[in-house]
Amino acid sequence: MNNQPASAFSIRAATDADWAGLWYILEPVFRAGDTYAVDPAIDKASAREYWLRTPQSCQVAVDARGQIVGTYYLKTNQPGPGSHVCNCGYIVSASARGQGVATALCRHSLTLARELGYQAMQYNFVAATNTGAVRLWQSLGFDIVGTLPGAFRHPTAGLVDAHVMYQGL
Amino acid sequence: MNNQPASAFSIRAATDADWAGLWYILEPVFRAGDTYAVDPAIDKASAREYWLRTPQSCQVAVDARGQIVGTYYLKTNQPGPGSHVCNCGYIVSASARGQGVATALCRHSLTLARELGYQAMQYNFVAATNTGAVRLWQSLGFDIVGTLPGAFRHPTAGLVDAHVMYQGL
Repeated sequence: MNNQPASAFSIRAATDADWAGLWYILEPVFRAGDTYAVDPAIDKASAREYWLRTPQSCQVAVDARGQIVGTYYLKTNQPGPGSHVCNCGYIVSASARGQGVATALCRHSLTLARELGYQAMQYNFVAATNTGAVRLWQSLGFDIVGTLPGAFRHPTAGLVDAHVMYQGL
Repeated sequence: MNNQPASAFSIRAATDADWAGLWYILEPVFRAGDTYAVDPAIDKASAREYWLRTPQSCQVAVDARGQIVGTYYLKTNQPGPGSHVCNCGYIVSASARGQGVATALCRHSLTLARELGYQAMQYNFVAATNTGAVRLWQSLGFDIVGTLPGAFRHPTAGLVDAHVMYQGL
């Protein structure tokens, strides 16, 4: 029984000191290969570049005990003529699912994106099998603007569609 | 008057020795900022990484005099669960337009993609204003599978849509 209320986490910018806690929740998601366009065999250093170092911002949701329960990155999706559109990725720790962390992270990212001057947010590659995420992003204002037939090689379901989702800011 | 027949070019893999000729046709396209998701101020070294070094393959169309009249790159579009889908970009020199070079490059790339084992090809960001390209890709088997509203900041037309185009192989 988890008595911790859903609001008992806060979101702040990640630092290098967060990497161990970040990797702890990122690694199982990347290894599973069913949600992110990441090589399931990705090494720790490459994952750090991808999630923490390269993006314009990496944020963490931290619970009352200081443990990382979720994270997102925010980066420019395309350079040059596409640089007014950002991209984000979100991960919630298995132990913190169902507490509203993903919703809070997404809302936080939309606010941050506006503050940084972005005019839209795009998700490039949402596995259609990830129905919970698709519904959540839709409830938070995203539209499915395109579907890539069979573009996602799911570890158990085979080739499944991937959605492109988009929201003007 | 150009008396050179449309067939007077051949396509081959690019080498480092091609870089000067490649940059000569790439630079004006990148600087114009109306077709590629590239910073219009990109420097020569970064452009070389982007077009010649990073992709899995870079090919050139060379005319009878040995001059580069067109080029394309081919790379994996997404790692991990998306690695069976490739992405290409094509550029034809201003002096060689209307000679079928883009069509030949696209067909060549589709053949190469199949040879390399890819199962689909995706264009991520085709400016809707680039109507000639959109029609050409459609005639060569691509579908518009998504449209990103206002995702392309065109230097004269302002925010225009960008298409995601896709073809199974």
